[in-house]
Amino acid sequence: MAPHKYVIGIDFGTESGRIVVVRVRDGEEMGAAVVPYPDGVLDENLPGGGKLEPDSALQNPRDYYLVLEKGVPRALKEAGIKADEVIAVGSDFTSCTVFATARDGTPLCLIPEYRREPLAWPILWKHHAAQPEADRITEIGRERHEEFIRIYGDKYSSEWFFAKILQVLNDNPELYEAADRFIEGTDWIVWQLTGAEKRNNSTAGYKAMWVKGVGFPSRDFFRAVHPRLENVIQEKVGTDFYPLGTRAGGLTAHWAGAMGLREGIPVSMGVADGHVAIPATTVTKPGSLSMVMGTSLVQMLMGSERRIVKGICGVVEDGIVPGFWGYEAGQYAGGDMFAWFFDHVVPASLKNQARKLNLPFATLLEKRAGSLRPGESGLVALDWWNGNRSVLVDADLTGLLLGATLATPPEAIFRALIEAAAFGTRQIIEAFEAQGLHTKDVVACGGLPARNKLLMQIFADVMGREIRVAKHPQTCSALGAAIHAAAAAGRQAGGYESIPEAAEHMAHLQSETYRPRPENRKVYNRLFKEFQTLHDYFGRAGNDVMKRLKALKREILAA
Amino acid sequence: MAPHKYVIGIDFGTESGRIVVVRVRDGEEMGAAVVPYPDGVLDENLPGGGKLEPDSALQNPRDYYLVLEKGVPRALKEAGIKADEVIAVGSDFTSCTVFATARDGTPLCLIPEYRREPLAWPILWKHHAAQPEADRITEIGRERHEEFIRIYGDKYSSEWFFAKILQVLNDNPELYEAADRFIEGTDWIVWQLTGAEKRNNSTAGYKAMWVKGVGFPSRDFFRAVHPRLENVIQEKVGTDFYPLGTRAGGLTAHWAGAMGLREGIPVSMGVADGHVAIPATTVTKPGSLSMVMGTSLVQMLMGSERRIVKGICGVVEDGIVPGFWGYEAGQYAGGDMFAWFFDHVVPASLKNQARKLNLPFATLLEKRAGSLRPGESGLVALDWWNGNRSVLVDADLTGLLLGATLATPPEAIFRALIEAAAFGTRQIIEAFEAQGLHTKDVVACGGLPARNKLLMQIFADVMGREIRVAKHPQTCSALGAAIHAAAAAGRQAGGYESIPEAAEHMAHLQSETYRPRPENRKVYNRLFKEFQTLHDYFGRAGNDVMKRLKALKREILAA
Repeated sequence: MAPHKYVIGIDFGTESGRIVVVRVRDGEEMGAAVVPYPDGVLDENLPGGGKLEPDSALQNPRDYYLVLEKGVPRALKEAGIKADEVIAVGSDFTSCTVFATARDGTPLCLIPEYRREPLAWPILWKHHAAQPEADRITEIGRERHEEFIRIYGDKYSSEWFFAKILQVLNDNPELYEAADRFIEGTDWIVWQLTGAEKRNNSTAGYKAMWVKGVGFPSRDFFRAVHPRLENVIQEKVGTDFYPLGTRAGGLTAHWAGAMGLREGIPVSMGVADGHVAIPATTVTKPGSLSMVMGTSLVQMLMGSERRIVKGICGVVEDGIVPGFWGYEAGQYAGGDMFAWFFDHVVPASLKNQARKLNLPFATLLEKRAGSLRPGESGLVALDWWNGNRSVLVDADLTGLLLGATLATPPEAIFRALIEAAAFGTRQIIEAFEAQGLHTKDVVACGGLPARNKLLMQIFADVMGREIRVAKHPQTCSALGAAIHAAAAAGRQAGGYESIPEAAEHMAHLQSETYRPRPENRKVYNRLFKEFQTLHDYFGRAGNDVMKRLKALKREILAA
Repeated sequence: MAPHKYVIGIDFGTESGRIVVVRVRDGEEMGAAVVPYPDGVLDENLPGGGKLEPDSALQNPRDYYLVLEKGVPRALKEAGIKADEVIAVGSDFTSCTVFATARDGTPLCLIPEYRREPLAWPILWKHHAAQPEADRITEIGRERHEEFIRIYGDKYSSEWFFAKILQVLNDNPELYEAADRFIEGTDWIVWQLTGAEKRNNSTAGYKAMWVKGVGFPSRDFFRAVHPRLENVIQEKVGTDFYPLGTRAGGLTAHWAGAMGLREGIPVSMGVADGHVAIPATTVTKPGSLSMVMGTSLVQMLMGSERRIVKGICGVVEDGIVPGFWGYEAGQYAGGDMFAWFFDHVVPASLKNQARKLNLPFATLLEKRAGSLRPGESGLVALDWWNGNRSVLVDADLTGLLLGATLATPPEAIFRALIEAAAFGTRQIIEAFEAQGLHTKDVVACGGLPARNKLLMQIFADVMGREIRVAKHPQTCSALGAAIHAAAAAGRQAGGYESIPEAAEHMAHLQSETYRPRPENRKVYNRLFKEFQTLHDYFGRAGNDVMKRLKALKREILAA
């Protein structure tokens, strides 16, 4: 019997990196390690000093190196695997995280003369200081009827590639000139591991306006946005993009040594952390909806052709699995909204009761919320605690709770927030359905399905669909990176020929599923109508009170 | 120098009775006592057993006797006052609290054969089980264009006199027959003290459809409501009503002995606890708005003529001070809504911080809410946690909170609830203004002005008016009862000729006042517009979602 082969998946998240060592044959996780980033998210000061402007979110690239140097050997050791049993390495990265680098890929922040410049540091996906730049890009894109604006649901986000590059140019033109390359984090880490700059076509499509067979918008467009941006593609980005699940290059001697692996083994193409999780939920074909349910909620669906769905985040050919169109939509607030509720609302009395019962308070809360029947609380909420991503694409919308009485207990509010999140997802599915994009199955991964059964049951009831859950819902991205690695290795090296083939063997679901209950479904259909009426009234110009209150708040804070 | 004269005021509240011994010359409080009702509010079981239906709220009349027997001697002792220095006794009572009695005034519940019948016990103001009866009365009143329906803002409340009597008739026709009299609590206690049934014209006007110079609706009306109700007035109520601040009779030998007072001293006419407080805030003439700010909010304004103001609770000639029209409006949720917030929302973290700072958590919350500027929270709320009393008159409306984000702290929600209560009051003032009823001054009493300076400042800012506060804001009803007593005594006995004259000497204000701040006022004018838009959208049939959710809740609970 041939010895087992293994792949390594490395998931670069927002606060830490996670490594898994996975058996190629069946996806079994043999070892794992998590390395928190010592500098975490830089949102107030730079390492070594230097105050940051509000809404900044940067990182220290040394933290990523640490994940490789400490985490991979630790995971290998836990797995008891030797270097020559590992046939490939895959990674994924938060997106859109943008690096300004020298010609050899060195982040500018690691070059002494630039280390005091904030934007010389990796600009993390949740850096929101480029809103004016995003507005400018949206405006010019709309004026010129650019293709990307349609694809992105009529709006370019402040989180995305060119908004951040334009901020560098606006804030610090010299830094812009000094940057030989601007590159997504996921492509940057691959560049480090292989020594060669090769960029993936998925984040290019979702965040950087690139369209397969068409390329980028014209020089005219970039010049219209800013005269000095005219040649940004030719000078600082490049025009070649490669499909997911393919070999980006071979592991360098340096990193092979630092991680305890063999030089030259395949490194798979870069990919965003959300998209990489999808094959790990067993979804590789049209008709299945994948829900990544963590601090925010992301829904991904594959289709065999392109449709324009208003209000989704994007649709990209080969964007999730080569051969299909990947549709992405999302809700800005998921676990974040529940965390807000836990921190700012759950009363001392409930925490005391939980202590007496020797239960975590979240368990008591879930139990009590679960004993309420749909409709019993009299509450309905809009899940816009962090704005609306899909289908309204409006960060200035805010949360709403309606129906409170003197008898409303905290668990009723908790349940209403869960229901609101589920209604938001249903709204997205219905937008897909309206364009003929049907959801047959639903598979979930992320922190919420791992923790909250009540939430999953409510989602099933509200969506009217059975929901299955990935076997290890919290580590789907790392497993997905391992699946990409196995596909990049190819069959001859002991891997697989494609992402779907790899996923077929390596991805598994839990046996327990969540089936909608008909009696709950009926009540939720009625409540969803109420949600939709409020959604359209506050979200579609019936009453712009939320935007006016936000504007007033900014005015007051600026005064 | 003549010896001082004193009067006693007895305030029968919801949970306890409060007695004050007051110097007639200047209103100085010489002694006081509070006697909690041992049986409190009966809302689940009768004393001695017997389950109550939902929404019931009854009381035990022996608790009222206890207030007289224990409380008055204790207050006299504290004051160091002898019986012959007390020239009169006044009292006020919650309203509309309805007693079914025998011909001699004995509550039916004290007669053994009726003690197991719930409605043989005093039916407390907040007993809400007579809603179907109230709906029936409203329907017939509207059909017949009855005068009282106009006066009561187009709706008869489930809390009021005939709704409760009709419930007795519907639920227990034999008990209805057994009741020789139906009487307001405030008139019943006066009957006990004097031995004679004499009813006041104020609660008759506000709760029992009686109109000065007109009387009650016709027999036809009552027959249309229920055939057996046709002769209710003639048989069980009576048609004679007497003005506030006059002598109802002399104290009986029995009660003089039990309380340690002189037989025969004047007992003033019955009066509701809200109305009696007004003279104690120094308000006895048109143009001043009195706000009683406790668990709920009541606004009272006097006018020199009758205007129809849509959505107020009522307008009654001589209803507060003889000679003027008393307009009453209100908000169902005041302190109750903040109590809900304290119990169900304030998080453990804030309570822990308060503990570390050695502060009551409400103080820390108020401090933090006070450090927010108007508009800074981005929140707006509708204060309908207990329905809307004025000007929408709709108990099925519910609370709304709009504008929450992941950064919304609990103090911002607290402030938004205070602002919502203030906007609700402003809405009422504007309804008065629209009918030419102008508010020149505002005076507040009740538990909230005693406790929460931030709230008072926000009310001043939102209303754009200076607010003065009664000297002892929490005991205005008891002082008011003493003022009524002094007026009932008359000048010859050492009292005064009228309520205004008594109030002029006996009622005082705090020197500190709350003045609107122009910069806050400007922002609140903008926020009030948002409040009004939401108020009308949810309250005036723009979107009846609140009513539908309440109906759904009832449906679910009944299933």
